[in-house]
Amino acid sequence: MDTTSSLPRGFLWGAVRARIKPSGRADLSAIIAPETATAAALFTTNKIQAAPLLIDRRHLAANAGRIHSVLINAGNANCATGEAGFAAAMQCCDAAAETFGCAAEAVFPSSTGIIGVPLPVEKVRAALPALRNSIGDTAEHFAAVASAIMTTDTRPKTAHATIDIDDKQVRIAGIAKGAGMIHPQVAAAPHATMLVYLCTDAAADPALLERLLTAAAETSFNRISIDGDTSTNDTVLLLASGASGANLSRDNSGPFATALSEVCTSLAKQIVADAEGAAHLVELNIRGAASDTDALRIARAIAHSPLVKTAWAGSDPNWGRLIAAVGYAGAEVDPARIAIHLGDLLICESGGRAAAFDEAAAHRYLSQPEFAVHIDLGLGNGACRFWTCDLTREYVSINADYST
Amino acid sequence: MDTTSSLPRGFLWGAVRARIKPSGRADLSAIIAPETATAAALFTTNKIQAAPLLIDRRHLAANAGRIHSVLINAGNANCATGEAGFAAAMQCCDAAAETFGCAAEAVFPSSTGIIGVPLPVEKVRAALPALRNSIGDTAEHFAAVASAIMTTDTRPKTAHATIDIDDKQVRIAGIAKGAGMIHPQVAAAPHATMLVYLCTDAAADPALLERLLTAAAETSFNRISIDGDTSTNDTVLLLASGASGANLSRDNSGPFATALSEVCTSLAKQIVADAEGAAHLVELNIRGAASDTDALRIARAIAHSPLVKTAWAGSDPNWGRLIAAVGYAGAEVDPARIAIHLGDLLICESGGRAAAFDEAAAHRYLSQPEFAVHIDLGLGNGACRFWTCDLTREYVSINADYST
Repeated sequence: MDTTSSLPRGFLWGAVRARIKPSGRADLSAIIAPETATAAALFTTNKIQAAPLLIDRRHLAANAGRIHSVLINAGNANCATGEAGFAAAMQCCDAAAETFGCAAEAVFPSSTGIIGVPLPVEKVRAALPALRNSIGDTAEHFAAVASAIMTTDTRPKTAHATIDIDDKQVRIAGIAKGAGMIHPQVAAAPHATMLVYLCTDAAADPALLERLLTAAAETSFNRISIDGDTSTNDTVLLLASGASGANLSRDNSGPFATALSEVCTSLAKQIVADAEGAAHLVELNIRGAASDTDALRIARAIAHSPLVKTAWAGSDPNWGRLIAAVGYAGAEVDPARIAIHLGDLLICESGGRAAAFDEAAAHRYLSQPEFAVHIDLGLGNGACRFWTCDLTREYVSINADYST
Repeated sequence: MDTTSSLPRGFLWGAVRARIKPSGRADLSAIIAPETATAAALFTTNKIQAAPLLIDRRHLAANAGRIHSVLINAGNANCATGEAGFAAAMQCCDAAAETFGCAAEAVFPSSTGIIGVPLPVEKVRAALPALRNSIGDTAEHFAAVASAIMTTDTRPKTAHATIDIDDKQVRIAGIAKGAGMIHPQVAAAPHATMLVYLCTDAAADPALLERLLTAAAETSFNRISIDGDTSTNDTVLLLASGASGANLSRDNSGPFATALSEVCTSLAKQIVADAEGAAHLVELNIRGAASDTDALRIARAIAHSPLVKTAWAGSDPNWGRLIAAVGYAGAEVDPARIAIHLGDLLICESGGRAAAFDEAAAHRYLSQPEFAVHIDLGLGNGACRFWTCDLTREYVSINADYST
């Protein structure tokens, strides 16, 4: 795919090193919409919210949902930093507004990294001229931002879609970061330090964008968990430049909604596939639940069970741990109706060990880098699809010595 | 302490090898009340319940809350084993009734170990004559049961108390097992495969015993978590032989309630201290919450956070992860009022990094095998005390290759 031609028009991207990350890698990036873009944003439901999120809400309200400059730093979350942290984020916005030629209210700041450490504003300010010089509209510029927002990620995460709306070509491009503290729930909010930036060159009013983004996030970012820890900084931003000339309305937005959902699902799965220390990407398919809510409760209980996740790390078909998690999920359950498949392999039927259970085959199936667990509750039509990963010694190693 | 003289009168204990555990260690044990004992039991709230728990409820109801023989096997949970598992547990009860000379309804079966594997009834039956020959009333007999109920535990867990009631000496002795799948919630139920057996030689009717046991469990077993996984087999049993001659009533039960609570708290802390792979026993003290329920929500969120628990494994004073967990706990929170101490060390005040935060001192404090985390929400009078542990590479190793 020629990714430059698949990039939405009306945006510029750039990234530089501000030396916030101890590694010295690029850590300050910008997404610029020179003609401005309409915006919708979803934020974490965590009650502790980082300073930039507070400012993002204010700026979107003050500027009628239009954004000119997105300024993202990695290496520091600017969270639990009190009034000084809020002031630091405002100073960054003021400096970015001056650098990129817009009102401070048209700046959308984002931060990710360690919590509780003052944001080094001077490093940000000092790097802004270089950041301005770095911006451009090619695939390389786009890729540079995808890399600069990474923290413990091992690889950048991007996704693209192109559709026709009213005979005009519309492009969607998304980037995401996140590998730990990932259990997003965006409720016009996700949980994780997950950052997601979606750009499209369709035109749409902020209310329609929010409706589309909320629906797409619900079955993508809100259906993943790495460790069940809900971040203070999760942000999903959708920007619409209108540069394609296509106008989205409630009547013609169906194909766009589908494409947006595919981009979000791709990014969500890429996040789980790059989970800290993980060796397996696991798709959970829950069906036959009394309700969709119950299906989601069961998926979350499984995705948060250290015993299930460590069994997966060993490719161990210990379905007893799965069924125990089903039982404590808080969902309606009739033990005698539960069936569990690993891929196509039946391992539990009528709540007990399946006669056909082939432990060696199940172990081989679970040895693959990606596998699926299907649980049928046998009660109703409630269903959900959810992605999670295993819990490994490497996850512990990565997180047992993070800040010190 | 002379533990034999501190043992409650009216009970016999014994344990043998039935070869259910692959290790070949003692795995079948009995607690016998020759003159029978009144009983109260709390069971897991997991909706998947092991066969012995279903039978325990029936037998307590059928026999007016009186128990003669407690039969416990380790190495197999007899859970998710369907009707065959229920029949297997009944066969064990019938055989135990014959062996120990009581009605089948006076037998209280317990199982702990792997889920979803048929219980080897013949091994149990074959070991019963040796089990009958093994029983006695000394500290060694009591200790033998404490060892035989272990699964991944590295050491037996026992606690004792002696009090005077109406000028008569009353003894309480408890044993417990559990090192993983530990997040008990006894609601006349706990979560974990936690098994707890409490014996006293006071006399009390089953309703009073249940009231006392529920109260004692609420601030002990229901205040611990190792991995957040709620077992299908958790059981807490309190037996009262009456052999001391002291009769408990609502009016004189205060000192007994206090002693029972101390025994339960000691056992609960011993379980967490022996948690699979854990290097640190952590006491959480939450106060200043809007309600006790909110305080418990916060304690549970922290105790279940892989990011907090891995930071503890590295003695890493990463309080940002603590405050993030406070934020997603679902409790009322005002970020600007939160204060966090590690022991006596202030690390966070007014929701931000404390001026006095001494990272090196905090790291040294967290390097101890036991430490305390104090969180003050600054909102109200809600409080709770909770015990949990760190999450280590060893926990993953122990659980990544359990059944295969």
